[in-house]
Amino acid sequence: MADELAGGPADEQVLGWRSVAWPTVPQAPHLTEARAPLLQPVRIIDAYGRDRVIDIPLERALTVYVDRREVVTLMTLGVRPELLVLGWLLNQRLVDRLEQIESITVDWDVGAAAVRTRAGLPAWEERSAHRVVTTGCGQGTVFGDLMADLADLKLPSPAEARIGQRALMRILEGMRGLDSVHRRAGSVHGCALFDAKSTRMLVFVEDVGRHNAVDTVTGWMRLHGVAGRDKVMCTTGRLTSEMVMKCAHADIPVVVSRNGATAMGLAMAQQLGMALFGRASNRHFLCYSGFERFDAEPEPEPPTLRVAVG
Amino acid sequence: MADELAGGPADEQVLGWRSVAWPTVPQAPHLTEARAPLLQPVRIIDAYGRDRVIDIPLERALTVYVDRREVVTLMTLGVRPELLVLGWLLNQRLVDRLEQIESITVDWDVGAAAVRTRAGLPAWEERSAHRVVTTGCGQGTVFGDLMADLADLKLPSPAEARIGQRALMRILEGMRGLDSVHRRAGSVHGCALFDAKSTRMLVFVEDVGRHNAVDTVTGWMRLHGVAGRDKVMCTTGRLTSEMVMKCAHADIPVVVSRNGATAMGLAMAQQLGMALFGRASNRHFLCYSGFERFDAEPEPEPPTLRVAVG
Repeated sequence: MADELAGGPADEQVLGWRSVAWPTVPQAPHLTEARAPLLQPVRIIDAYGRDRVIDIPLERALTVYVDRREVVTLMTLGVRPELLVLGWLLNQRLVDRLEQIESITVDWDVGAAAVRTRAGLPAWEERSAHRVVTTGCGQGTVFGDLMADLADLKLPSPAEARIGQRALMRILEGMRGLDSVHRRAGSVHGCALFDAKSTRMLVFVEDVGRHNAVDTVTGWMRLHGVAGRDKVMCTTGRLTSEMVMKCAHADIPVVVSRNGATAMGLAMAQQLGMALFGRASNRHFLCYSGFERFDAEPEPEPPTLRVAVG
Repeated sequence: MADELAGGPADEQVLGWRSVAWPTVPQAPHLTEARAPLLQPVRIIDAYGRDRVIDIPLERALTVYVDRREVVTLMTLGVRPELLVLGWLLNQRLVDRLEQIESITVDWDVGAAAVRTRAGLPAWEERSAHRVVTTGCGQGTVFGDLMADLADLKLPSPAEARIGQRALMRILEGMRGLDSVHRRAGSVHGCALFDAKSTRMLVFVEDVGRHNAVDTVTGWMRLHGVAGRDKVMCTTGRLTSEMVMKCAHADIPVVVSRNGATAMGLAMAQQLGMALFGRASNRHFLCYSGFERFDAEPEPEPPTLRVAVG
């Protein structure tokens, strides 16, 4: 079974508002996770004036403090906040190794995640000295820095990491079958990690922002020592430069979305040799880049109609 | 006719890579706009191995310098970059009055927007002193600051600013009819401003990020002295806290989306008395808040079937 971070009965109860996670000992018995409700019932009026109650996803502010200094405020559904914070620190290149972090403690009562490091975060010191605020689709990353990083990244070769048409269709089937917050309430993005060979779903996360969802998957991978080289990342969000970069940093060679690719996301994927699949639904999808990783099969002939005469 | 910022034949040619805009003199004859192509043809392979060429939206980095100091890098389709920068500065509360800005110059050759102020931006000085980087769905804004701002905002009363079911349906029809980048290439968000009374579309913008689209509309409104109090904002993006705040700052009392509302967006809209309409398509939509602004009409009876007997 996939480690479903959202969905399922466990989400309907509050398991605990306060957590302590030690990144280097994921299986420690004293590790707890902060849980909070994901859905909120609201009263609406439809176009014809009729009253109804529907569910909408909750969204909360989580302010991250590193060694007591405020670093960022993330707006999140709050599914697995410790993994989100860990993944965010990793994807922002503020943390390289898990060992740099002593603990991440989330307290929903105050909407805070307290990160304790072993020896500070030199990357953060350096970056905050620049006093640069970033925004937009580049969401919170210094674009130039990350582009420079690309040159150092090397995905596994197409011979080692490829995907066939049938495996991809099974993965899309797996995405469709999910009991998700999106299905129940809309307005969230989802990210799932699949094993390329077995097409088994390993982890599934939803969040109000697609970047939070992929950050949380990244946090989960690193905490559990899961390699990306033989995995497929599925997202409901667009294939943007950020998505490509985050997947590349996690060493994931195949990325799939029901949405399309942006020009910059595509340019980066081409440079990296990453396979991007977009507009994916049911039995249809487009391969935008990394053609050499994709084993297509011709469309099956429609069954011939035999008409018996006489 | 609407001032269509995207779409139409003008977009297919490069009108000029370099621009100079003087915010306080929008009609000046020497005012030019930087234009760049919006679409890029790319070769793809479909699920069955067939080759095709499709268009995808372009996306470019625009680094904003205020008085020669780097402030932010926006990832944008680049439709009307001067208005985007102006709207971003306004929505970030870095600029209060148009008069603070002397000029905005965009040069696509270097991906830069140079903003010259008359007397600096005190809000930026103060904020950069805090050294806070923000991200996620709260995209580049200091959440607490903006929440505090809410208390000072007062939208026009429901008696002054309301919308009927038929007007809303006409507006949705207007959105559907657009020759948009989204229709041609997907992967962009659109924002359009409508007159609530005449249901005429005044301006339409698309961008790779929904926040850029609404920022550009805000910039257009302020540059042309267009009030928000009798307008309706339509967006293809979710009704998030950011969207609600940006519309509230522009004094817009009615906001419509084909997507749903997030819990925080809804909470803010309720506090502000803003009418939020979501999941809007064709003749269906849901009113999430500001019920008192909405004049519903009962669903028309289906035509009775008369069967003549005898």
